[in-house]
Amino acid sequence: MSLLPFSVSHRDPGSAARAAVLGTPHGEVRTPAFMPVGTCGTVKGVAAWELERLAPEMVLANTYHLLLRPGVDRLRKMGGLHHLMAWDGPILTDSGGYQVFSLAARRRLTEEGVVFRSHIDGSEHRLTPESVVQAQAAFGVDVAMVLDECLPYPADDSAIDPSVDRSVRWARRSLDEAEAMRKADEGWAGGLFAIQQGGLKEEVRRRCTEELASWPFDGYAIGGLAVGEPSELLHKAVAFSAPMLPVDRPRYLMGVGYAEDLLQAVGCGVDLFDCVLPTRSARTGKVFTSMGDLVIKNARWTEDNGPLDASCSCPTCGRYSRAALRHLFISREATSVVLLTVHNLHFFLTLMREAREAIIAGRYGEFRDRKLISLQRGVI
Amino acid sequence: MSLLPFSVSHRDPGSAARAAVLGTPHGEVRTPAFMPVGTCGTVKGVAAWELERLAPEMVLANTYHLLLRPGVDRLRKMGGLHHLMAWDGPILTDSGGYQVFSLAARRRLTEEGVVFRSHIDGSEHRLTPESVVQAQAAFGVDVAMVLDECLPYPADDSAIDPSVDRSVRWARRSLDEAEAMRKADEGWAGGLFAIQQGGLKEEVRRRCTEELASWPFDGYAIGGLAVGEPSELLHKAVAFSAPMLPVDRPRYLMGVGYAEDLLQAVGCGVDLFDCVLPTRSARTGKVFTSMGDLVIKNARWTEDNGPLDASCSCPTCGRYSRAALRHLFISREATSVVLLTVHNLHFFLTLMREAREAIIAGRYGEFRDRKLISLQRGVI
Repeated sequence: MSLLPFSVSHRDPGSAARAAVLGTPHGEVRTPAFMPVGTCGTVKGVAAWELERLAPEMVLANTYHLLLRPGVDRLRKMGGLHHLMAWDGPILTDSGGYQVFSLAARRRLTEEGVVFRSHIDGSEHRLTPESVVQAQAAFGVDVAMVLDECLPYPADDSAIDPSVDRSVRWARRSLDEAEAMRKADEGWAGGLFAIQQGGLKEEVRRRCTEELASWPFDGYAIGGLAVGEPSELLHKAVAFSAPMLPVDRPRYLMGVGYAEDLLQAVGCGVDLFDCVLPTRSARTGKVFTSMGDLVIKNARWTEDNGPLDASCSCPTCGRYSRAALRHLFISREATSVVLLTVHNLHFFLTLMREAREAIIAGRYGEFRDRKLISLQRGVI
Repeated sequence: MSLLPFSVSHRDPGSAARAAVLGTPHGEVRTPAFMPVGTCGTVKGVAAWELERLAPEMVLANTYHLLLRPGVDRLRKMGGLHHLMAWDGPILTDSGGYQVFSLAARRRLTEEGVVFRSHIDGSEHRLTPESVVQAQAAFGVDVAMVLDECLPYPADDSAIDPSVDRSVRWARRSLDEAEAMRKADEGWAGGLFAIQQGGLKEEVRRRCTEELASWPFDGYAIGGLAVGEPSELLHKAVAFSAPMLPVDRPRYLMGVGYAEDLLQAVGCGVDLFDCVLPTRSARTGKVFTSMGDLVIKNARWTEDNGPLDASCSCPTCGRYSRAALRHLFISREATSVVLLTVHNLHFFLTLMREAREAIIAGRYGEFRDRKLISLQRGVI
């Protein structure tokens, strides 16, 4: 089995930050990179041609949602996930595990896998490490994730070890399934990433990583963070977790996060991120700018004819004033979701593009510190 | 007072259809033309740059909604309606009268004007012919409409004459107000259209038109149709109403309609149309194609990997299958509103562009008949 090609081209002299390229069946992913989330097969409110202009390196979709609707067989008949999303670039899907534990009703966990009821219609579904790899292969994704158990925060100490042990065994079964599928040459050329778990416990994460790293996964994710812990604990956990992961494989911090979190994690050597924050926030009217967040419905923007962020080059900032965006948002116009989503995604994607440039220039630390100061300045 | 320039360049030899150009402060409107509706200051779900690619000749917004929110003073401070819509092309607003009679609560009609309560917050508002012209001038529109009373269908015979007489008096007051504003040189360079009323009664519409046509309006609309009457009656009314209107001024059929209605009306010499049909239908999953309508949520599209309309050149048809669009629609994704709205608007705008080309080529009748046959063929 050959792994997805991954090469680190630049290392920042003052931190663990690195610039790299991950090869996938649908093109190269230049890292550090932020993946917009397209849960059910679309980034909410964003047409495929709009997404292309935003030019993310890779996008994420959720296996849990796609399994429930349209389902594996139907999605295969529809030509796969790239066809559904009308997107020809790289796609990563999660394993569905996280949503089973956060969304589904009446889940039952065994060594074999997990049985749950759909949050849409109550129908019963079963996920196993093997079925989850098969599903993602049927979707035709570029990167699949192993099924794992994501513990809540705070987790019972006594629950962590058995859970991590099971996640490790599931990861091995996932890899075996992927290797069997590749041997059978069923046409899937994507990679498989393992997921490090262990809550906030450094020693558990180390033990977990040592096992996972002894097997040939295409990449390694840090899972089970950004589940409610304070940001100091998140940053501390990223700082000890990222360096454990194999240096020659992509590192992916799942479900994180704020600009500040990304800047810190890149400095710890993380390559990939995904988060619903830019898209979900757009729908609630929260806007990210180079000087921190703003809430578009606030009365202070009522007659503000300036753009969301004067330093932003997105089409929303090029055309719409804060006053106009506030009017559209409080009028509950779908257009405001489109406009704010485009802006927020542009913010996160640009942040990671600039981080990559700073790493290549060998001045990531200076870049990060300057950005952090700006983010705390406050929007005027 | 100088009128907006209007010149008819081509007349179809076999019908009353004509190709013309209306000059406005924000550019030329080549007719026949369909105006997308941007009720509250945006075409629902369509970013300004997307609207530009669809390239409508003129767009419509609703004075009633804009008066309630953001309001005249605030919209003026925001830089006017073009600024709010981030749209630099021609804009026409209606007078608000239609919505007062269809949406507002507790309206009270007098010779002076109409008092009503907002459907948003119950606040009391007053429209007069003068205030409505002032409001539209403050918005900075290219074409303003006079305040009129739009009778329901069916209307009491006894109600029609007094109502039309009042609408004519209101039209005169509107024109006086517009001429006073232009004399005072308050910076508004838009035109003012009068509205012919009279229900389905040819003689009432003729009498109304004779009065209105004796005054120098920039254009003349046919109002009070498409309010629930059967399409045969609509077509009959258009056939006798349009030829009454001055031949040297643009003719605008308000609130119409289906492709079949537009094709018929163009043949009667109508130049301008607006309707919520393409945008509202997109939100309910109804799709217009060259072979008639389709309902995207229907199970028959579940595994249909073809485009909505194989002969359509819109970006939605270029990228998304019916199966993908059905999935996004039943998943209630905002993206499906965007994609279907773009397609439906493209359908109406292309229909009018093709009609104009056929008129210029002197073969409108043949074009119309071919389109009507195709529309009845049924989607496969």
